Amino acid sequence: MPSVQTIGSRSRRFDAMDKACGRERFASDEYPEGMLWAGALRAGVPHGVIRGMDTARAKAMPGVVAVLTAEDVPGENRQGFIHWDMPVLCGDKVRHAGDAVALVVAETREVLSEALASIILDIESLPVVDGLDAALAPDAPRVHDLETGNILKEATLRKGDACEALTHCAVIVEETFFTPQQAHCFLETENGTARMDEDGTLHMTVSTQAPFRDRFEIGRALGLPPNRLHLTAPYLGGGFGGKDGATVQCLLALAAMHAGGRPVKMWWSREESLLAGYKRHAARMHFRLGAEADGTLTALVCDLDYDTGAYAHLGVEIMALGLEHASGPYRVEHLEANGRCVYTNNPVAGAFRGFGVAQVCFAFEGVMDRLAAKLDMDPLELRAKNALRPGDRNGVGVGMISSTGMKECLAGLRGHPFWQSRDQWVREAPPLTRRGVGIAAVHNGMGYGRGLADSAVAKVRLTEEGRFRVYNSVSDMGQGNSPTFVQMACEILQQDESLMELVQPDTERSHPSGSSSAGRTTYTYGNALIKACEAMRDKLLHRAAMVLMVDDASVLELVPGAVRHAVTGQELPLAALVGMLHPDDRFCIGEAMMPVTQDVPEGGEAFRLGFPHLIFPYAAHLARVEVDELTGNVSVSDYVAFTDGGRVLNPQNFEQQVQGAVAQGLGYALWEDCFAEGGRLLTTDLSNYVIPGAGDLPDIESHAVETEEQSGPFGMKGIGEVGMNGPLPAVASALLRMGLPMTRAPFTPERILAAFDGDNS
Amino acid sequence: MPSVQTIGSRSRRFDAMDKACGRERFASDEYPEGMLWAGALRAGVPHGVIRGMDTARAKAMPGVVAVLTAEDVPGENRQGFIHWDMPVLCGDKVRHAGDAVALVVAETREVLSEALASIILDIESLPVVDGLDAALAPDAPRVHDLETGNILKEATLRKGDACEALTHCAVIVEETFFTPQQAHCFLETENGTARMDEDGTLHMTVSTQAPFRDRFEIGRALGLPPNRLHLTAPYLGGGFGGKDGATVQCLLALAAMHAGGRPVKMWWSREESLLAGYKRHAARMHFRLGAEADGTLTALVCDLDYDTGAYAHLGVEIMALGLEHASGPYRVEHLEANGRCVYTNNPVAGAFRGFGVAQVCFAFEGVMDRLAAKLDMDPLELRAKNALRPGDRNGVGVGMISSTGMKECLAGLRGHPFWQSRDQWVREAPPLTRRGVGIAAVHNGMGYGRGLADSAVAKVRLTEEGRFRVYNSVSDMGQGNSPTFVQMACEILQQDESLMELVQPDTERSHPSGSSSAGRTTYTYGNALIKACEAMRDKLLHRAAMVLMVDDASVLELVPGAVRHAVTGQELPLAALVGMLHPDDRFCIGEAMMPVTQDVPEGGEAFRLGFPHLIFPYAAHLARVEVDELTGNVSVSDYVAFTDGGRVLNPQNFEQQVQGAVAQGLGYALWEDCFAEGGRLLTTDLSNYVIPGAGDLPDIESHAVETEEQSGPFGMKGIGEVGMNGPLPAVASALLRMGLPMTRAPFTPERILAAFDGDNS
Repeated sequence: MPSVQTIGSRSRRFDAMDKACGRERFASDEYPEGMLWAGALRAGVPHGVIRGMDTARAKAMPGVVAVLTAEDVPGENRQGFIHWDMPVLCGDKVRHAGDAVALVVAETREVLSEALASIILDIESLPVVDGLDAALAPDAPRVHDLETGNILKEATLRKGDACEALTHCAVIVEETFFTPQQAHCFLETENGTARMDEDGTLHMTVSTQAPFRDRFEIGRALGLPPNRLHLTAPYLGGGFGGKDGATVQCLLALAAMHAGGRPVKMWWSREESLLAGYKRHAARMHFRLGAEADGTLTALVCDLDYDTGAYAHLGVEIMALGLEHASGPYRVEHLEANGRCVYTNNPVAGAFRGFGVAQVCFAFEGVMDRLAAKLDMDPLELRAKNALRPGDRNGVGVGMISSTGMKECLAGLRGHPFWQSRDQWVREAPPLTRRGVGIAAVHNGMGYGRGLADSAVAKVRLTEEGRFRVYNSVSDMGQGNSPTFVQMACEILQQDESLMELVQPDTERSHPSGSSSAGRTTYTYGNALIKACEAMRDKLLHRAAMVLMVDDASVLELVPGAVRHAVTGQELPLAALVGMLHPDDRFCIGEAMMPVTQDVPEGGEAFRLGFPHLIFPYAAHLARVEVDELTGNVSVSDYVAFTDGGRVLNPQNFEQQVQGAVAQGLGYALWEDCFAEGGRLLTTDLSNYVIPGAGDLPDIESHAVETEEQSGPFGMKGIGEVGMNGPLPAVASALLRMGLPMTRAPFTPERILAAFDGDNS
Repeated sequence: MPSVQTIGSRSRRFDAMDKACGRERFASDEYPEGMLWAGALRAGVPHGVIRGMDTARAKAMPGVVAVLTAEDVPGENRQGFIHWDMPVLCGDKVRHAGDAVALVVAETREVLSEALASIILDIESLPVVDGLDAALAPDAPRVHDLETGNILKEATLRKGDACEALTHCAVIVEETFFTPQQAHCFLETENGTARMDEDGTLHMTVSTQAPFRDRFEIGRALGLPPNRLHLTAPYLGGGFGGKDGATVQCLLALAAMHAGGRPVKMWWSREESLLAGYKRHAARMHFRLGAEADGTLTALVCDLDYDTGAYAHLGVEIMALGLEHASGPYRVEHLEANGRCVYTNNPVAGAFRGFGVAQVCFAFEGVMDRLAAKLDMDPLELRAKNALRPGDRNGVGVGMISSTGMKECLAGLRGHPFWQSRDQWVREAPPLTRRGVGIAAVHNGMGYGRGLADSAVAKVRLTEEGRFRVYNSVSDMGQGNSPTFVQMACEILQQDESLMELVQPDTERSHPSGSSSAGRTTYTYGNALIKACEAMRDKLLHRAAMVLMVDDASVLELVPGAVRHAVTGQELPLAALVGMLHPDDRFCIGEAMMPVTQDVPEGGEAFRLGFPHLIFPYAAHLARVEVDELTGNVSVSDYVAFTDGGRVLNPQNFEQQVQGAVAQGLGYALWEDCFAEGGRLLTTDLSNYVIPGAGDLPDIESHAVETEEQSGPFGMKGIGEVGMNGPLPAVASALLRMGLPMTRAPFTPERILAAFDGDNS
């Protein structure tokens, strides 16, 4: 019986104290000696042609080290890692107000500001494509010079014949839903430092979700060999997808190439982050759902339009996930999902927790609620009746051969006092207050999906002091993957956390393991780490057997700090054993790859990368919602989440992930909207872009519905995303039940008051 | 279906061309720039007290760098790695004529000789213990100051009650057998070079079977930290056990410590090798074997005395193997085996192919032949009737759960024309010639046995050029383990040999894997290498999947020089892939340990290390022997060996191993004897110590009896030793059938002529 059992126990995070005490250093904490500051001049104009730029005053300014424009970019001058259409510095055309047109390197932040302000920019404005309607109009101005107009990608997924099937349905509901652009609003805005060695190696410390992949994105954009790029990625003060893909990286690298070997820091202000950072895609979703009279879902036809803003980034992949998840966690025999990903002059959209799925959850749960109302069915029972079970095929025909706990999550809700007492709670509403209890059932594909290697390479080392060092190579944005890795290593190596060390991603020390994203971080690297630790355990027992002249390593066991002979109790300290090992023999490397499905629906071949998914976490959420009839203010007074994330490795961490996601989801439901007019962002800082504070949020109850995901490390699945997807539909569900059939998020007081007047648009 | 299939095929050895062309560098080929020569002064007296030594003339001699005596030895001044009783330089007492008493370092070999000759040694002779009788006499002078007199170790193995059982036997045979000291007579005598770095690291290139273990033996003897000793072991020009344990190592290291950083070479002449090198233990073996009337073996009582010479070295372990194998490859219900390992003033005995077993095979096969004669049974059928089968327990009670092909080997002999035609062949003897056909059934425990970790650590690297480098860490004495490792790596990595590199053992590059000995070399390291190569294959397919963005590594395969996509045929050259791997990620390490038995007979606890064994190769040999009635000359005209070595990896290599062992065994049977009188060796060089040349040997037919050893690499067992054990009993068996019941090896013409006169002693 192993003495160290940490998996499944509520233990303090390995990184908790260092973070609480401020000892942990984030990228933004780096102020290297002799450091310069770099900053970008932004276009300010959402769409236009650059006629000229006068940088003479800036260049002449004392303390200015370099003023760089598109001409100074040595490579392709295109960012992106699947689609590369975004200039590092725009030279001819600007496509959104946040486009960078010049880069200044200066001795101080003050000189930097002054120099940036001194650059005279001559841009001839072009007609602005300010949203989906404008982009899709027949004579719309083209954001890019595409034959398809502003349509970056159009695709249709088909299973069966949904249009035909709809004609036979006993009941059909139909609605169009709208979701806004959302900003990630991480605590730590985009930043990094960089320094170019004399030998041409570029050392960068960046707040990034994908240090290994960044090398290729930077390398391509700037014409640098990826193996001369050395990135380190300390803990992130939040990421949520907004640091998945280059933010400061290319600009910073370019600055370092002109800094004469001195380190350079770039750190976007909150305003710059809101202006130039990636956003969640705004979407328009038209759904027609048909069912039999008993509520059995039959057919879904939907049209999804995603506004990818000025550049493609991950727009196509995000649309693919939207189409894939369009029918929710339900059995639907016939599906036709049409998608368009569209360029506009809005801020660049990209990855965001719930990657394309958070949007469609609003729509499919919206039509489910409408269907329940039309059939006069209990909305929970309608969901339970149609919920995916193990062995079912999902909306796009993928067989559910991995753990599938959707029904169990709904069963959890069904038994919850807030659900049981819902009618009473509504009846007891105070004067001038409406109450509703809403629910939502959601899922979220995990991992990169088919067509990409969702793989990781883990390393663990026995140090000279006889401690174990885990080389994390997937960024920790705060979600707690890296302390979970320590937990895993402790369990397998039977060590106390006091004997563990943890290294954050560093392209020269750790190994390529993909990005921290897609709910795959702990899963994929964790599987690799388990292999590395098992190899390390086997290695150490074997080497100790050699030293102790024991003929059977199975009589040996790892105990904290030592190898012990189980029979005699004799111990060989690891600090002694390591001295007998060749340096090559002091570490172990393990690799893992996430399984993929071979089931692909008609039309799926349009998505070469990342479609479809095999493994899904599931969740059922409940929101108790109150609306102030005078002000239109919506408040969520209680929130409950039942989540199937496979086995729970650390209940505390699990709960924190769920709570964080629900908080962000409530922000999406109630307040957050990157509001632009004519391509110009009006929500310029946190005074007008409102995110929820602790006081705005209810208590969020998290319940784990533990299934066993056979392919996962210790049976877990990633739950980074699924919690994001429930709040918007759950709140909408509550509002619908109050007679407020909202179709446009967020549910601001203005929109609620309008809805009282019958306007839900 | 893999395209590269090398296992089981008769392929040219990887090292053949370099050796044939003289490109391969042996330790003796090293002549580093600025090199000095070191040499030892030998006692010359077999037993005595050192009264004084005058080194003044030597020290004053031009070209002499250092003259060192026991006082200059900084450590324990004791060699040995299980028992350490042998001084590096004797200071007070000498125990055999080859004892080293002084060490000289000189500019040239000529100066070295002169200086050694100039040292005046004053030794007061002590009575000489010249053999077992002298050593065991009640008032024998003591070679070491032991309470047990000259008995280093005494032990009895018991299974059942053999003495009691003998009283019920239908038939009993009894005989005493004698075997001589045998010299290894490798082509390349003991040698090495050494150089001490400024930082105290001692770099040595030595012709050694155990470079990793040597570090500890040298370190202990000279008070050096083992991790400051860096040994490399190139191919050996033969070893046979004689380079298992320090030969030149300690003297050479001591010389290097006094060479002012210059390299030093020590190379024993043939004479010095015969005088000071290790020998096979001479033995006296008294056997009483009882059987039922149908020939079923019932009980064996035997007494084995081994002459370990002046120092213990591996004497105890060798005796243990003798006792363990005393009852041969047969089922014997009752066993009592008494052993004594005895000090004398003869040359130091140590490991030699057939380690303690080659001796007892003469005795147990001798009594088997006598039993067959007494029962008037066919000697082959008597052996087959009693031969161990899978699932049986052997003489010491170990269950035969590994591959056991003894009966199959005998069946091979039974069907062989030489056996079928034996009577006719004897009848057709020319005038004055006697003929006989003899057989022997033998086995030989493989590996270190119980109580020791018989383990290995293998490494394989993908080089920058995209080739694979195997880091052999078990010396290749010529037996062909290292080319077999290349074969294994080729098979698993699906590479051509042209893409392979092979590194010979180097304590700074390869990993501790024990010695090249005990038939365990290819088996144990091979198992480790298979794991390393499998890990490398998995690693490369996984890394290629990442690069190629393939979501399922199982569609990839290794082909020579590349990873190939099995479906598209797309290839990623390994030379390109390696550039994408972190240096830590370019090699794989694997480990393996030989299984051990838990079955130990009564008395077996006396042998803490190396007893008993679980896995045995088996062999049945046949010799057609002619004796010249006038001269007494014995010649073997034909020889056949059937060998169960598990699966055969390379038939050519297998055959060469068998042929080499039989040749050495025939030398043991017919000619070789380190003949000493009063402790002084009379066989001082190859003019009087006679080993067989090609012209003295018959054609040796080798047949493999392939079993599948489940625990072995590709199903193999080690056959380095078992072939040595057959010739002596097979020749004796033939002689017995001619009426020459020889009991003392070798069967020299003098002894044959005496036997004609009825004297077999």
